[in-house]
Amino acid sequence: MAIVEDTKLIDREKLARDLMQIVGESGVLWKTYDLKLYEYDGSIDRHMPEVVVFPRNTHQVAEIVKYCNREKLYYTARGAGTGLSGGSIPLRGGVLITFTRMNRIVEVDVENLRAVVEPGVVNLHLSQAVAAQNLYYVPDPSSQKACTIGGNVGENSGGPHTLLYGVTTNHTLALEVVTPDGEIRRFGGAGAPDAPGYDLCGLFVGSEGTIGLVTQITVRLTPLPPGVKTFLAVYDDIVKCSDAVSEIIKAGVIPAALEMMDNLAIRAVEASVQAGYPVEAAAVLLVEVEGFSEALEQQSQAIEEICLSKGALSFKVAKDNAEREKLWKGRKGAFGAIGRMSPDYYVCDGVVPRSVLPQVLSRISEISKEFGLPIANVFHAGDGNLHPLIMFDANKKGDTEKAVAAGTEIMRTCAEFGGALSGEHGIGAEKRDMMCFVFNEEDLGVMRRVRDAYDTRGLSNPGKVFPTPGRCGETRIPKQGTAQKTYERDGMQAW
Amino acid sequence: MAIVEDTKLIDREKLARDLMQIVGESGVLWKTYDLKLYEYDGSIDRHMPEVVVFPRNTHQVAEIVKYCNREKLYYTARGAGTGLSGGSIPLRGGVLITFTRMNRIVEVDVENLRAVVEPGVVNLHLSQAVAAQNLYYVPDPSSQKACTIGGNVGENSGGPHTLLYGVTTNHTLALEVVTPDGEIRRFGGAGAPDAPGYDLCGLFVGSEGTIGLVTQITVRLTPLPPGVKTFLAVYDDIVKCSDAVSEIIKAGVIPAALEMMDNLAIRAVEASVQAGYPVEAAAVLLVEVEGFSEALEQQSQAIEEICLSKGALSFKVAKDNAEREKLWKGRKGAFGAIGRMSPDYYVCDGVVPRSVLPQVLSRISEISKEFGLPIANVFHAGDGNLHPLIMFDANKKGDTEKAVAAGTEIMRTCAEFGGALSGEHGIGAEKRDMMCFVFNEEDLGVMRRVRDAYDTRGLSNPGKVFPTPGRCGETRIPKQGTAQKTYERDGMQAW
Repeated sequence: MAIVEDTKLIDREKLARDLMQIVGESGVLWKTYDLKLYEYDGSIDRHMPEVVVFPRNTHQVAEIVKYCNREKLYYTARGAGTGLSGGSIPLRGGVLITFTRMNRIVEVDVENLRAVVEPGVVNLHLSQAVAAQNLYYVPDPSSQKACTIGGNVGENSGGPHTLLYGVTTNHTLALEVVTPDGEIRRFGGAGAPDAPGYDLCGLFVGSEGTIGLVTQITVRLTPLPPGVKTFLAVYDDIVKCSDAVSEIIKAGVIPAALEMMDNLAIRAVEASVQAGYPVEAAAVLLVEVEGFSEALEQQSQAIEEICLSKGALSFKVAKDNAEREKLWKGRKGAFGAIGRMSPDYYVCDGVVPRSVLPQVLSRISEISKEFGLPIANVFHAGDGNLHPLIMFDANKKGDTEKAVAAGTEIMRTCAEFGGALSGEHGIGAEKRDMMCFVFNEEDLGVMRRVRDAYDTRGLSNPGKVFPTPGRCGETRIPKQGTAQKTYERDGMQAW
Repeated sequence: MAIVEDTKLIDREKLARDLMQIVGESGVLWKTYDLKLYEYDGSIDRHMPEVVVFPRNTHQVAEIVKYCNREKLYYTARGAGTGLSGGSIPLRGGVLITFTRMNRIVEVDVENLRAVVEPGVVNLHLSQAVAAQNLYYVPDPSSQKACTIGGNVGENSGGPHTLLYGVTTNHTLALEVVTPDGEIRRFGGAGAPDAPGYDLCGLFVGSEGTIGLVTQITVRLTPLPPGVKTFLAVYDDIVKCSDAVSEIIKAGVIPAALEMMDNLAIRAVEASVQAGYPVEAAAVLLVEVEGFSEALEQQSQAIEEICLSKGALSFKVAKDNAEREKLWKGRKGAFGAIGRMSPDYYVCDGVVPRSVLPQVLSRISEISKEFGLPIANVFHAGDGNLHPLIMFDANKKGDTEKAVAAGTEIMRTCAEFGGALSGEHGIGAEKRDMMCFVFNEEDLGVMRRVRDAYDTRGLSNPGKVFPTPGRCGETRIPKQGTAQKTYERDGMQAW
C-alpha cells in the first residue's frame, strides 16, 4: 500500500511554505531545532517529521490531508505527545498534524449531558469547565493534566476509573472525522445507545489515526458522584493482595477504582511524592468507592472485611479530601517517580483475567530476573490491566534492547494467560509485531481490509497497529532517526 | 455484489438433503407448512426461506456457510424471531440458519464476572442461571423471556436498564464468528476494556448478520444490585412529564430505568394486565433506582421532589416486590397490550436528545392525525429512545402503507431533531431506506466497503442495513412473499 519511499527527497522549506498557505505562517514549524521537540512521545520510539503543522479548524485539516495526498506525503496526528505506544510518532517522517490549537470546548449541553470539543482540548480542562454544573468527563488517564481528548480517542484511553465507568469509547457519542480522502464525515450522534448501521464511531475510537483524523468529538458528561471514599490496604504478600482484588469484585462490590502497587513502585513513590504508603509493604491496594453517604459506608465495610480477611496488615480510610488527594498523588505520580529512580523506563500495558493475576505477577518477577532489569508494577488491578515498568539505562549498551525484549516476554505471558495486548495505551509502533500473539493472519487480514475501506493510499500514520510482515513476536528494535535524505539536506544547509 | 438471482430455481428437496449431511435429518425443515412459521419476525416484513437449518455447533455453521458459498445461496441468521426491524427475515429466500439448538451456557466464570454462551441462549435464561451466584446479565429487552443473546448481539439490543448500564455492545467481551468465507474467527477477549487493534468485536455487535454469524459470545456478568426501588409518577400533561425526565438527568440522579407511557398506552396496559396505572393520566413515568438502602432513600427523595415540582399529580413507591413486578408487568407487556386493542401495530424505534422530547412527541401526535392512525407511546425516556406504536389493520386496504408512511415521517422527525434511526431495534429491512436521513452517500460507501472487507459474495443476509439505491426516504412497501420459482414448484408438488 505504501507509495512513498522513506528516502524520498523532500524540499522541507517548500513543504512548509505550501502548508503556510493553508494555516498561515505561525502554524508551521520546519527547522530542525523545532522539529526535535516533536520526534517523540511517552514511548521509546523516536522519529522526526519533515514539518509540524498546527491547524485551527476542520477545514484546514481537510486541506492538509488533501495536500498530503497530492504530494504523496505521509501524515501523522498528534495531541499532547503523552502517548505510551508511539501512536503519534511520525515513523516515516512526513507531516505531523498537531491538534493543540484546536482546543475549544465548542458546546456544553447540560440538559443532554454532553459536550462537543475539539481534539486538542486537554482532558482535565473539560472536567474543570463543567465542574460548576456538577458534571465531569469520566475517562481519567494519569496524564490527564496534559493529554488531549483527541489523543484519548485515538488510543481509546482509560484511567483508574475505567473499572466502573468504561474507557473512552464508552464516553464518545459522535465524531467528526477527516477521512484519508480529505472529506469531512460525521459518525454516531444524538447519544443513541445503539449506533444505526455499523458502529463506525466505535471503530474510529482506538484506530490510532490509521483511518482518519478526528476533528470534533461529542462526549458524554457524567454527574459528579455525591460522595467518594478512598482507602489504602497494605499487604506483606503480593498474592494475598491479588486475591483481595478478585474477592472484592466477586463479592459484587465494584469500586470506582481498584489500583495496586508493588514494593518497588511504593518505594519510588515515597521517595518522590510522600503519599503515605508504607515503604516496607509488599503491595498496597488503593480503592475508591462513589455514591451516597450510607452506600459509601456499606461498601467501605464490605471492602474492609474482604481486605482484612485476605490478610491486609492495615486498612486506612482517607479522612478528608487532602488525604484522598495525597493517596491519588502517589498513584498518579508513580510513573514520574519511577523516572527519578531509573534513567529510563519502559511502561508495558497488558490485560489478564483478574483470577490469574498472582501467576502473571510471579512470571513478571521471573522475567525481571532473567533480563536483569528491575520491574515495578503499578496497575489497574480491578480491570486486570497491568502496567509493568521496566527500568533500564538507554546509555548502557544493549539495555534498551533488553528492556524491549523483557516487555515482549511480558506481553507474550499476558496472551498465554488468555489476556489482551492493551488495556488503554494502544498498539502503536510498540506492539504492532506482537499482534500475532492474539490475532492470526486471517484476523489481521480482515483488519487490513477494514483499514483499506478508508485509506487506499497508506499515507495516514504508517507503521502503526499492523505488524511488519514476517516479524511476528520478534523483539523490535525501537526506531530512532529521521528520513535519511532530508536529514542530510538539513545538515548541508545548517538548519 | 449479489450474484444470486431472486428467481433462481432451487430444488428445495435436494437442498434439504444436502444440509442434512451436515446437521442430520432432524436439523432441517423444508416443507411449506414448516417454513411458514419462519417467514416473519416481530416486524411487518415477511418472506419464506427455501429451507430452515438448525446447527448444533460452530463447525456445522461453518459447513453450512461454505455450502451456501459453493451453491451460491443466500443465507440469513435467526434467533427467536422476536426482532422488530426484520433483521432475521430471509428477504431473498435461501437458507435460514436458526440458532435455537445452540443454546448452551458453555461456561460461567464467577471470579472474572463473565460467561460464555452459545447464540441461542434465551436472554433471561442466562440471568436465571447465574442468579444463585448473585449475578445477572444486564441487557433486558422487553422480549427477554424469548429473545436470544445471539439475536441481541446481531441488533445491539437494549432494554429499560440501558440508561444506566448501556446496550448489548457494552456487555459483549468477545465473539466467536463464522465469517462469510466460512472460517471461524475470534474477536475481543479477556475482558480488556480496550480492544487492541480495531474494535472488530464492537463492529460485529449490531451488524445484523451482514458480515458473519456469531457462534459464541463471551458476556459480562454484573452483580445484582443490593437494593432496588421503583416509582410511578402520574401527570395530566405530557410536556410536564417530559420536563421531569430532563430535570432528573440534569440533577445528576441517573436512575437505572426511566420509562414513559402516554395515555393511549396506559389505557391499553390497564385493559390488558392491570398494572395499576391511572387510566385518566396523560402520561406516567416508571422510574427505578438501584443501590444500597440509604442511597435508594436519597435518590428517591431527589426524584420525588423533581417529579412533584414538575407537576406530578401523584408519586407512588412500589411497597414490595409484588408491587414492583406489577408496575414492570405493565411496561414489559405494553406492546402485547396494544396488540389487544388493534389488529396490527407497527413499533418504531428512534432516538432524540432528551431536551426535545416535548417537541418530538407533539409532532408524533400531529402525524397520528395526518395519517388517521392512533399512535401510542411507550418508551425509554431517559435515553430519549422513542417507541411510537402505530395502530392499523393490515386487512384494511391501504392501512399497512399508511402505517409505514407514518413511521417514515416519525423517523424523519427524529433525524431532523438531531436524533438517530435506532435505539435498540436495528435497521434491518425496515429502516434501510431511511439511512439517508442521517448518512450521506459517502458515509454509506464507507460502510459498504467495511462490509466488503468481510463479505465479498453478498450472500450473508441480503437486503438489510444498506439502502436500496435510489430509494432514499421513499415509503417502503413491506415485502411479503417467497422466491417466486420455488413457490410455484412448491405449489405444483403440493408440499
